[in-house]
Amino acid sequence: MTVTFEDIKKAAERIRPYVKRTPILTSQTLNNITGAELYFKCENFQKAGAFKFRGATNAVFSLIEEQASHGVATHSSGNHAGALALAAKTRGIKAHIVMPKNSAEVKKQAVKGYDAEITFSEPGMEAREATLNEVIKKTGATLIHPFDNENVIAGQGTVAIELLEQHPDLDVIIVPIGGGGLISGISIAAQALSKKINIIGAEPELANDTYLSFKEKKRISIPSQTSICDGLLMTVGQITFPIILENVTDIFTASEQSVLQAIQLILERMKIVVEPSAAITLAIMLENPTIFRGKKIGLILSGGNIDIKAIAKLL
Amino acid sequence: MTVTFEDIKKAAERIRPYVKRTPILTSQTLNNITGAELYFKCENFQKAGAFKFRGATNAVFSLIEEQASHGVATHSSGNHAGALALAAKTRGIKAHIVMPKNSAEVKKQAVKGYDAEITFSEPGMEAREATLNEVIKKTGATLIHPFDNENVIAGQGTVAIELLEQHPDLDVIIVPIGGGGLISGISIAAQALSKKINIIGAEPELANDTYLSFKEKKRISIPSQTSICDGLLMTVGQITFPIILENVTDIFTASEQSVLQAIQLILERMKIVVEPSAAITLAIMLENPTIFRGKKIGLILSGGNIDIKAIAKLL
Repeated sequence: MTVTFEDIKKAAERIRPYVKRTPILTSQTLNNITGAELYFKCENFQKAGAFKFRGATNAVFSLIEEQASHGVATHSSGNHAGALALAAKTRGIKAHIVMPKNSAEVKKQAVKGYDAEITFSEPGMEAREATLNEVIKKTGATLIHPFDNENVIAGQGTVAIELLEQHPDLDVIIVPIGGGGLISGISIAAQALSKKINIIGAEPELANDTYLSFKEKKRISIPSQTSICDGLLMTVGQITFPIILENVTDIFTASEQSVLQAIQLILERMKIVVEPSAAITLAIMLENPTIFRGKKIGLILSGGNIDIKAIAKLL
Repeated sequence: MTVTFEDIKKAAERIRPYVKRTPILTSQTLNNITGAELYFKCENFQKAGAFKFRGATNAVFSLIEEQASHGVATHSSGNHAGALALAAKTRGIKAHIVMPKNSAEVKKQAVKGYDAEITFSEPGMEAREATLNEVIKKTGATLIHPFDNENVIAGQGTVAIELLEQHPDLDVIIVPIGGGGLISGISIAAQALSKKINIIGAEPELANDTYLSFKEKKRISIPSQTSICDGLLMTVGQITFPIILENVTDIFTASEQSVLQAIQLILERMKIVVEPSAAITLAIMLENPTIFRGKKIGLILSGGNIDIKAIAKLL
């Protein structure tokens, strides 16, 4: 079982009533700086502040009634938690979210704001997974993995359908890579819709497991990666990695400094707020000025959930 | 001579190749907070970062060749300076901008970036006007006033055509008031396009000359107003004030604190950057929760030119 373009088209139909069709913005200044023609797909404006709501919604609305009645569950301290909570609320079912008890207060509040049931665990992946398993055993909820889930991948792929509908002649789409759900879905859809397109992954230098795995053509796991791109720290998935190997042209990495520079350019020139994990798409262009010159490039601004005060201090 | 809806339609045709058709964003969270249905017209994404580029472009491209060849001139330390400089550059003519020599470095750089000729003056309105007159005498450039100019007003009115094309059933449009150019143009277009619409002006409590003038039905000038809304400090114009009296339903004021709260909500919930002069539209809704409840409301986010680090410190 894997994900096809048909699955992504069905996902687009399924989630249409619930997700935002996000705008695609341009900036003459950033075109001038990069020497390319840039189209920014603004998933930072998506409901719950990130593309994650597409995949979560597709997964939640794909469940049959009987499954759905027991709710859904995941462990996450990030955008998937909020997205799954809101998707479940939209369908009128329960979301059980396991969060490490040291999660930022603002993230706890966001998930609570969507009426999810939060179970706090000790920090660390093992403790989180153990707690999640208990919750699922007790409630019968369906696990919705943040990226290694076909329905989630298909939902994320709908970003590419919208982008290529408006700009079918893109040469390149640059996509951030965390667990690989977004780039998996986008690459499947884009390769189906365009003969000439190249899909490029963007990863932090400091959390470059997918870059290394891609070069080695085998999945490498790096424990405890750390980067300002807090949405990109996961190891690439078992389902997503083969899709990436098949459909992605190349993966570039960017330094923390380039990511900060990209955030600042996007804030000041485009007047929009993006999280570091989204700004990395522009960061790899800044670090590789000649490769992308003269091309028509889609950049996926994957999310906008940052603490603006904290970021402003770093700029 | 005054401005008609025909003038605004002609302006829309004239500036179409040069200006951005800015997106209209929505936010479920802000709808929930205000109890209204909000449509944000994002002129913060306009070229040069504010609606001012519409009026400046219409004025510059309305000049006959002979006039245009001598260039255009204005005094401004704000958005009109950048807008006029870019409009002139777009037509391939000179822009002469008089700026007080204590203008912020970032503003000087922005105007220089559009290849304008800057002449520095002593601060204060009299010195600025005297220097401008000298520049005009020497160069033969045409003065483009930031708001008391029919072509500028007609250009700003094109915002309403775009907004009402997509959302013809708005009950209210809320518009920031500085010199009154934006609300003049918008109110003329909106009254022509809609039978039921109410146009509401938004002004800072600390710079409320138009509010007072509107109540007294005569133009009151307050020397040296001061507010975080640095784009709204001018006294309402001689041409704009009668238009406002005729077409605007009411004017509300907001405190500095409400403006900061509105900036923060727009940053955190909508993920976009607006200047205080734009956020005031949401600020008056926050201060008057019952008046706007249940209504469909257009808010003009007039510009996005702020120093994000300075603003983050205030939040």
